[in-house]
Amino acid sequence: MSAGSTGAAIVAVGSELLGTSRLDTNSLWLAGRLEATGLRVARKSCVGDDPREIAAELGLARARVPLVLVTGGLGPTDDDRTRDALALAVGRPLEMRADLLEEIRGRFARRGIPMPSINERQAMVVAGADPLPNRRGSAPGLWLEDGATVFVLLPGVPREMEAMFEESVAPRLARFAGPPRIRMVLKIAAMGESRVEERVRPVYAKWPDHDFTILASVGEVQLHLTAAGEPEGARAILEAQRQDFEAALPGRIYGVDGQTLEGVVGQHLRSSGGTVATAESCTGGLLGARLTEVPGSSDYYRGGVVAYSNEAKTALLGVPAATIEDEGAVSEAVARRMAQGVAERFGARYGIAVTGVAGPDGGTEGKPVGTVWTAIAQDGGETTARLLRLPGERASVRGWSVASCLEDLRRRLKGEAHA
Amino acid sequence: MSAGSTGAAIVAVGSELLGTSRLDTNSLWLAGRLEATGLRVARKSCVGDDPREIAAELGLARARVPLVLVTGGLGPTDDDRTRDALALAVGRPLEMRADLLEEIRGRFARRGIPMPSINERQAMVVAGADPLPNRRGSAPGLWLEDGATVFVLLPGVPREMEAMFEESVAPRLARFAGPPRIRMVLKIAAMGESRVEERVRPVYAKWPDHDFTILASVGEVQLHLTAAGEPEGARAILEAQRQDFEAALPGRIYGVDGQTLEGVVGQHLRSSGGTVATAESCTGGLLGARLTEVPGSSDYYRGGVVAYSNEAKTALLGVPAATIEDEGAVSEAVARRMAQGVAERFGARYGIAVTGVAGPDGGTEGKPVGTVWTAIAQDGGETTARLLRLPGERASVRGWSVASCLEDLRRRLKGEAHA
Repeated sequence: MSAGSTGAAIVAVGSELLGTSRLDTNSLWLAGRLEATGLRVARKSCVGDDPREIAAELGLARARVPLVLVTGGLGPTDDDRTRDALALAVGRPLEMRADLLEEIRGRFARRGIPMPSINERQAMVVAGADPLPNRRGSAPGLWLEDGATVFVLLPGVPREMEAMFEESVAPRLARFAGPPRIRMVLKIAAMGESRVEERVRPVYAKWPDHDFTILASVGEVQLHLTAAGEPEGARAILEAQRQDFEAALPGRIYGVDGQTLEGVVGQHLRSSGGTVATAESCTGGLLGARLTEVPGSSDYYRGGVVAYSNEAKTALLGVPAATIEDEGAVSEAVARRMAQGVAERFGARYGIAVTGVAGPDGGTEGKPVGTVWTAIAQDGGETTARLLRLPGERASVRGWSVASCLEDLRRRLKGEAHA
Repeated sequence: MSAGSTGAAIVAVGSELLGTSRLDTNSLWLAGRLEATGLRVARKSCVGDDPREIAAELGLARARVPLVLVTGGLGPTDDDRTRDALALAVGRPLEMRADLLEEIRGRFARRGIPMPSINERQAMVVAGADPLPNRRGSAPGLWLEDGATVFVLLPGVPREMEAMFEESVAPRLARFAGPPRIRMVLKIAAMGESRVEERVRPVYAKWPDHDFTILASVGEVQLHLTAAGEPEGARAILEAQRQDFEAALPGRIYGVDGQTLEGVVGQHLRSSGGTVATAESCTGGLLGARLTEVPGSSDYYRGGVVAYSNEAKTALLGVPAATIEDEGAVSEAVARRMAQGVAERFGARYGIAVTGVAGPDGGTEGKPVGTVWTAIAQDGGETTARLLRLPGERASVRGWSVASCLEDLRRRLKGEAHA
């Protein structure tokens, strides 16, 4: 609760952030990265594209903290005014940098496009500032030391901002570093937030002086742990806490920190030489899309069929028309045959299938919206099926179904690895 | 782009808002309500629970705008310091209001609980301020006129804040009310931000007194238009601007406001009785997933094949192995055969195919990461193909590829409707 003399300010620039639909989410990511270097965020703000407003905000921020990070407003268009605002705030001119101009031109040339003239302004630099390279876009960032203040200008596009921060900003922040806080994120898939909370409550009680944050998104719950102090001791505390959470949720913590469910499934498949194929109905391709988010997934993902119609389920997956007729397209029997059929067609060891009522229409009394059958077939092995009754809307039903399929496959692969 | 002299500032108080997991969402709701009364949000900020930090922020905000709304920090606990901060900022004392104390006590009494002594501080009022009743909680709000500035303190709990705003704040805002603003969003797919900006610049010049915001995400650019004044006139201005943008980007504005690209494609298919199937390689199911985000898409989406391996392209889509051998899996010939094959297998009027190098590995000199071939086949009609050379990483290449396929299909459907 000190007055912020060792903290940082984050300023998000963009008139769209002042409306009714967009929030600055970059600051969440930045807060985590700053925390890891021992820096605390003392204030955050959003201002529009008016350079005078931005400059006024930079003036206030520098009066409160020694480090001011600004995101957004570095693009090529008329409403990208952050460079001008910083020049105004520190009373320095903007200068055209020929080397940057060449770099930006080269970026376009490599794609076989002439550089639009409006991109020229991205080569303007506040006098005395260091440009920060942008590996993922055309807008360079800026690092400016002015008196006791460091200003860092970053792009607003998250993936550009994150890469630039990691490569060019984090290494320079050492001078601000206090005692670092170490963070660990534990990830649980396909289990509701309340159920997780109930199970882990005794762990909270065991560590009364520690803060735990529980965060839920569709089909996933994250437990955020932090510990302060010298790194080795802090890491030992987090590891002890991790073991306590693992005991409270046996086998259900699928990963830690940056791991993803599809990435962990991929690792298991890769290490066991397994391959997988997908048969989707209500998820429309989402399961395949998620499995293939992982670079190199072609090593174990064979492909899939989106069988959105009953005819496709029969023609492409070999589900007997009579089974669909008798049991309905959303049924255990159909899910099982879809999983077996797709494994066979693609010559994969595992076939995963999902068929359900995603809504908002199509529900019946016996099979309301949110009714989903999933199945996993194994070449020469058992086929298992699961019935889900999911709350929420179409996007939520689809997302949960995918998380549930991946979690079931993960647990199966892990069990087989240990057997 | 005026300096904000008629705008409002929103200040969210709470150290939890400066961490890695919580965002101030109250401001979205408030922005909508303020906009409806003709007030524009000029700045937003989040500060921690330190009264000096809060007071400094209130000082800056009052220098920029005549109306400062503060949410949060009105609770009974030690870290609720917004009242103290306002007293500090305006140099007035805090006074205990006996009538408020009675009210808060009564609230507890009605629930059969004695009032905890910590709640007493909720009866403290900055001298000269009007308390605002809280129908849904114990913390009263405050309305303070100090010089040319109005400060409004609201609770941080959304349902308490919203009720208090509607009942006690909105009616008093009439004096600030300018003409209400109306908003329109124009959407363009599969065209880069710089290219859009270059084309629409003459429209900006034609409407010098209007603000336009351009927003880019993967495969999509949005133009945000706003107009003030009585609704009918404002709507006419936005419509005239829309026509100017349409003339600058002929045929490329796919939708307005809440419309989505997949939704518009679905409308065209539905109205023409067309059906579609998808054949995906590098996008792994993302194209099917996006088409099926639309409720009721089973009326026109037949399904698809994710052919992640060469064998699957041959076995399930009928792409000759020799073609893959000769031309490579990422080639015009393969994309065309995939599109034709999937339309045939699913009995769909249109087949869309995408095959490319999403990265990070798999690129070659002739076909670097970002090289993508797409194709659209039509039963009894022409098959067209397109080569994309996309910048960026895996997720971006995949997202752009999908947007490009959908935009090509949309334009084709529209052309056929008009032919």
